[in-house]
Amino acid sequence: MFTPATADQRFVLDHIVGIADLAATERFAAASDDVVDAVLEGVGQLAAGEWAPLLRAGDTVGAKWTPEGVVMPDGFVKAYHDYVEGGWGTIGVPEEFGGQGLPFAIQTAVLDTLGSANMGFALAPTLTVGAIEALAHHGTPDQQALYLPHLATGEWTGTMNLTEPQAGSDVGALRSTATPLGDDKWSIKGTKIYISFGDHDMAPNIVHLVLARTPGAPAGTKGISLFLVPKYRLNADGTPGDFNDVRVVSIEHKMGLHASPTCVLSFGDNDDCIGELIGGEFGGIRAMFTMMNNARLNVGLQGVQVAEAATQAAVGYALERVQSARAGSPSKESVKIVEHPDVRRMLLRMKAQTQAARALVYYAAAQVDRAALGEAGAQDRLEILTPLAKAHGTDLGNEVASLGIQVHGGMGYIEETGAAQFFRDARITPIYEGTNGIQAADLVGRKLSMANGGVFAQLIADMRAEAQDTGLIGLIDACDEIGRGMAGLDADDKLAASYPFLTMLSVATCGWLMERSGRIATGDDAFSAMKRAACAFYVAQIVPEALGLKAAATAKADVLYSVPAEAFAA
Amino acid sequence: MFTPATADQRFVLDHIVGIADLAATERFAAASDDVVDAVLEGVGQLAAGEWAPLLRAGDTVGAKWTPEGVVMPDGFVKAYHDYVEGGWGTIGVPEEFGGQGLPFAIQTAVLDTLGSANMGFALAPTLTVGAIEALAHHGTPDQQALYLPHLATGEWTGTMNLTEPQAGSDVGALRSTATPLGDDKWSIKGTKIYISFGDHDMAPNIVHLVLARTPGAPAGTKGISLFLVPKYRLNADGTPGDFNDVRVVSIEHKMGLHASPTCVLSFGDNDDCIGELIGGEFGGIRAMFTMMNNARLNVGLQGVQVAEAATQAAVGYALERVQSARAGSPSKESVKIVEHPDVRRMLLRMKAQTQAARALVYYAAAQVDRAALGEAGAQDRLEILTPLAKAHGTDLGNEVASLGIQVHGGMGYIEETGAAQFFRDARITPIYEGTNGIQAADLVGRKLSMANGGVFAQLIADMRAEAQDTGLIGLIDACDEIGRGMAGLDADDKLAASYPFLTMLSVATCGWLMERSGRIATGDDAFSAMKRAACAFYVAQIVPEALGLKAAATAKADVLYSVPAEAFAA
Repeated sequence: MFTPATADQRFVLDHIVGIADLAATERFAAASDDVVDAVLEGVGQLAAGEWAPLLRAGDTVGAKWTPEGVVMPDGFVKAYHDYVEGGWGTIGVPEEFGGQGLPFAIQTAVLDTLGSANMGFALAPTLTVGAIEALAHHGTPDQQALYLPHLATGEWTGTMNLTEPQAGSDVGALRSTATPLGDDKWSIKGTKIYISFGDHDMAPNIVHLVLARTPGAPAGTKGISLFLVPKYRLNADGTPGDFNDVRVVSIEHKMGLHASPTCVLSFGDNDDCIGELIGGEFGGIRAMFTMMNNARLNVGLQGVQVAEAATQAAVGYALERVQSARAGSPSKESVKIVEHPDVRRMLLRMKAQTQAARALVYYAAAQVDRAALGEAGAQDRLEILTPLAKAHGTDLGNEVASLGIQVHGGMGYIEETGAAQFFRDARITPIYEGTNGIQAADLVGRKLSMANGGVFAQLIADMRAEAQDTGLIGLIDACDEIGRGMAGLDADDKLAASYPFLTMLSVATCGWLMERSGRIATGDDAFSAMKRAACAFYVAQIVPEALGLKAAATAKADVLYSVPAEAFAA
Repeated sequence: MFTPATADQRFVLDHIVGIADLAATERFAAASDDVVDAVLEGVGQLAAGEWAPLLRAGDTVGAKWTPEGVVMPDGFVKAYHDYVEGGWGTIGVPEEFGGQGLPFAIQTAVLDTLGSANMGFALAPTLTVGAIEALAHHGTPDQQALYLPHLATGEWTGTMNLTEPQAGSDVGALRSTATPLGDDKWSIKGTKIYISFGDHDMAPNIVHLVLARTPGAPAGTKGISLFLVPKYRLNADGTPGDFNDVRVVSIEHKMGLHASPTCVLSFGDNDDCIGELIGGEFGGIRAMFTMMNNARLNVGLQGVQVAEAATQAAVGYALERVQSARAGSPSKESVKIVEHPDVRRMLLRMKAQTQAARALVYYAAAQVDRAALGEAGAQDRLEILTPLAKAHGTDLGNEVASLGIQVHGGMGYIEETGAAQFFRDARITPIYEGTNGIQAADLVGRKLSMANGGVFAQLIADMRAEAQDTGLIGLIDACDEIGRGMAGLDADDKLAASYPFLTMLSVATCGWLMERSGRIATGDDAFSAMKRAACAFYVAQIVPEALGLKAAATAKADVLYSVPAEAFAA
């Protein structure tokens, strides 16, 4: 049974996000203690009461393609409407666009809870957030007025349409076209793949944000523009009207995340698909990054979600399943498996990694709010944290989901138990919204060199000022040395070392936040005791593991290229 | 397309197994160079030509339960018969029992190839090997004469029946009963779960080896006996006759390995199930370990199989998929993704881990043969290597399968691509035949203390005598220190550190074998170049990671028990 992780969320909001700082500002004055508690409790009820019970059906029935469009499993339409009715979509949307104007960090907590209950389902609101961001930052006042109120509530949902068969990580290779029709309208034509919630039956309209190429556009990413393409065009009164020639060709047969229909969308089969520019011609990549950056945090958050869910399931099983006496015990009575040291090690690792991932992602989310407040350095901090939150958050989600199966033993491999679903669902997260390899490339290729290394240096300085554990300080020092050394490397050497370095820096950041958490959690309640144990375990055992990556993070690319590509098939 | 890994198998047989040493003995004189080559080539043809093409159907159609028994997907019956006809089952079976008497290491190579082509399918012959071992060591001459020739060819298959719903890792908790009928016959009654290939339509008889409790038997493992229970009783002429009241109640709905029916078997529903004792009353655990130990090596081998298959698929994709220009390159032409440093890092890691796992498992397999020859220390070496081969081999299989998905990007998550199947199939291997946690407990609880630590000390000494790399020597030293220290720890502390220690010792062993391999592979062919690169990568980058586990491998259990069990749910 799913229980919202309210205590840990509140702890992280208080001590990692610094929600009180935010609430002390005029902009976020609404984020008072009472409101935060009410939000966490309220969304927890929705998540536990309505969303979690649909978890299995989302997997076993899944979203289905039909000639009339994608149909969600029974119960999803109502559960989604209750989300809309409850106002949960509006949490982080600015008041000027019909939202509640609460901090992004609170919205993060809301999505955390919904996704921990049902990760695939929660992807629908998550994607809508990306569409809202793009429109809020790059839309015209008319576009904002027409679309944002409906997106803010979640009444309409949003999608991101980037990928084409030949254009995955290489977005610039896309071929979809937009031809001017005059009057700021464009005719959209092309096929997009991997469009999550590209169609479904939970909303009367779907707002597709589509990257396409205008006539004579330069090659590559420079020539890309972003278009707003609703499933149904708006009538004069703003209500959904005529079908806009956006068809679902098929949905993918994926390993997991079956609640989320992954659509192949065809735009303009009948030359009758009309879009509007967002962010100006050739402004597509900039607008896309606005949409993607928060999406990357939200995918990192999916790592937290699946880790939370997998941990709860494993703990529940370990507290019930009785097997074998405890080794070395005088009693020959069989015990609950939570009592066996190696099972308990796995569970504590799951707790520690879940809490660390939550701390990391919420900390990054807090920078969105601090940047919005104009706090010095917050935007920079956000940018350097984004690849860490996305890549390491999702890596941890996968690790924890795998441990969850292991704790269940043979039962974990049987689908009915549910542990396997988390493992299957989690596996997409290191891939989409920029593979984790792309995140590592972003870290070493762009983020380390921001402000001539000053952004990275400030992160290191902040960690160093607070860290106390020798091992943690050693890891921070190693990151500092390796990160500074990156500047002198050529592209191949940087990239060859990028992934292990990203992991090291992520663990250092988590270690910093977890060590602090352990110091703060002085209560004698069960949550505080568990927090102290998880933090102690993290610093003492997980931090040193990351130091073991130093050799890989300082290795050169030469060994990779010491054989021709074809020799890999030898 | 699957290609048998013949070159690497031959390399490992020559330089890790020492096949020439074995062939120089009278017992294994048949294992000449020509024969070994012919075996590798011949089974490679069967695997690539007939078994690999059934890989997808094994997953998508899968074995099906019907009221008449389990039915395999189309093509499996013929492919299995061709395996039997080709004599591939007889490779490692002693000549006295109708086999070819070739080394176990050669049989390992045969199963490696078959399982790399189709891991779920290859589980059928793998399990038969366990039944052969149990009968060869503990059966009466009559039992051996009646059953072994049919099992040796694979004409009949074998199963192991240990687990019951309340008795998983705790085998001693089983409740199935055997009541004497006189004349060395026993009436068997009980339900067994997780019986791989417990039923199927590829063989005219199935030989179940069933653990059960005789009347008045002591509690726990001491009171367990092993019974031979055929699906069909034998007629006087030894042919299958009357149905023996063994029913398939259902098969499990698993995350993967769908080609292998995981059966719930009910014995004696009509009080008409007759079994014979194997290895004497209360000799069940000893006989089970005979069966299990080689089974553990063979499950470690499944890690090699799935790693090989996943690596081949990922390499194939990376050599074809074109995406993005190479960073830092003056050319803006898109390249095959194998050219991107982080993709190449993943592929080289996959190659290195696959080769390391193969070296480890074949090295352990070689000890079976050396022990059979009476070579001093070989049985001890086998026993200490078994938990490493099983646990680390399967851990690597999972890691490599996950990397295989990552290399495929979004395509990896789509079932049709096949990368996801490897990932799903692999996940059972750290669980069955003793979870990897049980393996770690076996290592620190039993194996380290063998001969007062002498068996462990000899392994360390052998590694130290050959290792040259400073990092590898450091890892060996760390293992030595930690392993010797285990003797002074209480059970909780030992077990708390057992898994990280098992990983360290496994990587040290692999590092030792890989470093040697890199020195030996001096050829200028593609395979040798790749071997050198994989070995260099392993020693330079993977060995140091394992050193990062030192803190965890020396941590005490206290942090695990610093909170009450219920606090894990807080």
